[in-house]
Amino acid sequence: MAVDVGGTETKAALVAGTPERVVAVEQRRRGTPRGVDGPSTAEAVVDLVVDVVDALRPTAEHGIDAVGVVVPGVVDEREGIGVYSTNLGWNDFPFRDLIAERTGLTVAFGHDVRAGGLAECRMGAARGLRNAVIMPIGTGIAGALVLDGRIYGGGGYAGEVGHVDVGHGDPCGCGQTGCVEVRASSGGIARRFTERTGVRVGGAAEVAAMVRAGDDDAAVVWDEAIDALARGIVVLAGVLGPEAVVLGGGLALSGDLLVAPLGKKLDGLITFQRRPELRLAALGDEAGCLGAALLAIDELEGS
Amino acid sequence: MAVDVGGTETKAALVAGTPERVVAVEQRRRGTPRGVDGPSTAEAVVDLVVDVVDALRPTAEHGIDAVGVVVPGVVDEREGIGVYSTNLGWNDFPFRDLIAERTGLTVAFGHDVRAGGLAECRMGAARGLRNAVIMPIGTGIAGALVLDGRIYGGGGYAGEVGHVDVGHGDPCGCGQTGCVEVRASSGGIARRFTERTGVRVGGAAEVAAMVRAGDDDAAVVWDEAIDALARGIVVLAGVLGPEAVVLGGGLALSGDLLVAPLGKKLDGLITFQRRPELRLAALGDEAGCLGAALLAIDELEGS
Repeated sequence: MAVDVGGTETKAALVAGTPERVVAVEQRRRGTPRGVDGPSTAEAVVDLVVDVVDALRPTAEHGIDAVGVVVPGVVDEREGIGVYSTNLGWNDFPFRDLIAERTGLTVAFGHDVRAGGLAECRMGAARGLRNAVIMPIGTGIAGALVLDGRIYGGGGYAGEVGHVDVGHGDPCGCGQTGCVEVRASSGGIARRFTERTGVRVGGAAEVAAMVRAGDDDAAVVWDEAIDALARGIVVLAGVLGPEAVVLGGGLALSGDLLVAPLGKKLDGLITFQRRPELRLAALGDEAGCLGAALLAIDELEGS
Repeated sequence: MAVDVGGTETKAALVAGTPERVVAVEQRRRGTPRGVDGPSTAEAVVDLVVDVVDALRPTAEHGIDAVGVVVPGVVDEREGIGVYSTNLGWNDFPFRDLIAERTGLTVAFGHDVRAGGLAECRMGAARGLRNAVIMPIGTGIAGALVLDGRIYGGGGYAGEVGHVDVGHGDPCGCGQTGCVEVRASSGGIARRFTERTGVRVGGAAEVAAMVRAGDDDAAVVWDEAIDALARGIVVLAGVLGPEAVVLGGGLALSGDLLVAPLGKKLDGLITFQRRPELRLAALGDEAGCLGAALLAIDELEGS
């Protein structure tokens, strides 16, 4: 089984497969519960996991071998601990051991974005690559680093590619300035368009539609997003030398409107670094759940 | 045996030890030969390696089991190829296979900086850490990434931490602007002091001495170096989350004059990232040679 605990929605699935490819046999979606504080939210999340495991157990013809659970925030995969989540409020919560105790199952515990990256690496857009960065671009910009064929977590602190300072000087909620995601996340693009024009938009997809329709303000905001993103990718190219950068999340749905100018910008900025190929994510918002399943299978296989 | 081929000097050593600790039993230093072009330089380097192996063979009481050879530039460790070297001029030269053929020995082939990082990780300043960045600061600034206890090479393209754009805008020889090493390498510090004052200096050590003596120009240049270096380390902290950054090369000899203000600057810049500990390298200019020996031992152990 796989459970992907999101900031607002939790996806659960009964899955079948191998370490190379998993398929969701049966799915459930639930609202992510909120407690009155961080620890009670964490306990409510554990209750939810136990609940969906019980709900899906009868549908599992051959029983459930293990459950993979992924959460956002800072996650220590080795210790099975949710170190910190801004959104959900917990600190150093021992998810893995508690879920194992309550379900009686083998539990793999991981990070939503890194698990999604693992899925893109094993069965999606980064399949066959040894080194890649998978960047889901939504409200913010996260990164899963696939290095020498393995997901690298840095004790839970790696992959904050949205907070690379690319020099534009605008303040970020993280306390720094110039962060990539201030200009290049879906949230940032929508906010900047509104700041510039006074027109409220539902999201970056609307801005993209206006770019296609020839709107000048939308084009300026979009170009600035491309510039920030390209400069962030140049940093990744120099530090990590990935073969590809896989663009995911809501912004990737804009497809060629994103990839074509980004590739051109990269060509202009990169000098001696290896120019990473740009690819679009293949697994959509199922990546985290599929990755959780892969973590569970890996745990069973002892790797 | 271990051979560290430098831009001007090559260090060779007969070594004894384990995968955790090696000791140089007998050493030789030779000038690195130059051919009329890249391929002939590469061939001359192979000749030199064969020559020092022959020279040290009689001193090896129990014979030579393997030789580790490390070179600068872009190196593909997996394929045993020197992909590219600006200084020495070669392209895609199959060092490992040629040296194996000529010496009849098991050969491990690697990158000088990454091998030095491996040595710092196993037996030096980063011992016991799972995640660290080892930064030798000299003419330029390089980086060896220790991730999950292993050296990560990114197909030869990883670790270019000296070319992270930190926004100061000054042009770099690499074709970009704002690179860390333009302001923070020993070479950059000396050059900038001369540009500012018209006074020629032998290197960053002289600038450091003037900072200690209260020279205002030296202090400005030094502060700018600290600032660029700190901003580069913040990027590494967000992308990789290392437990420590190990400062090496000539600039690390300035010790606390480097580490104290750098730590203070980092504290001011870092927000949510894990603040890496700052450490000084422990193995000096022997790191590359000791790392080459470790690569040879690893090759023998089949890891």
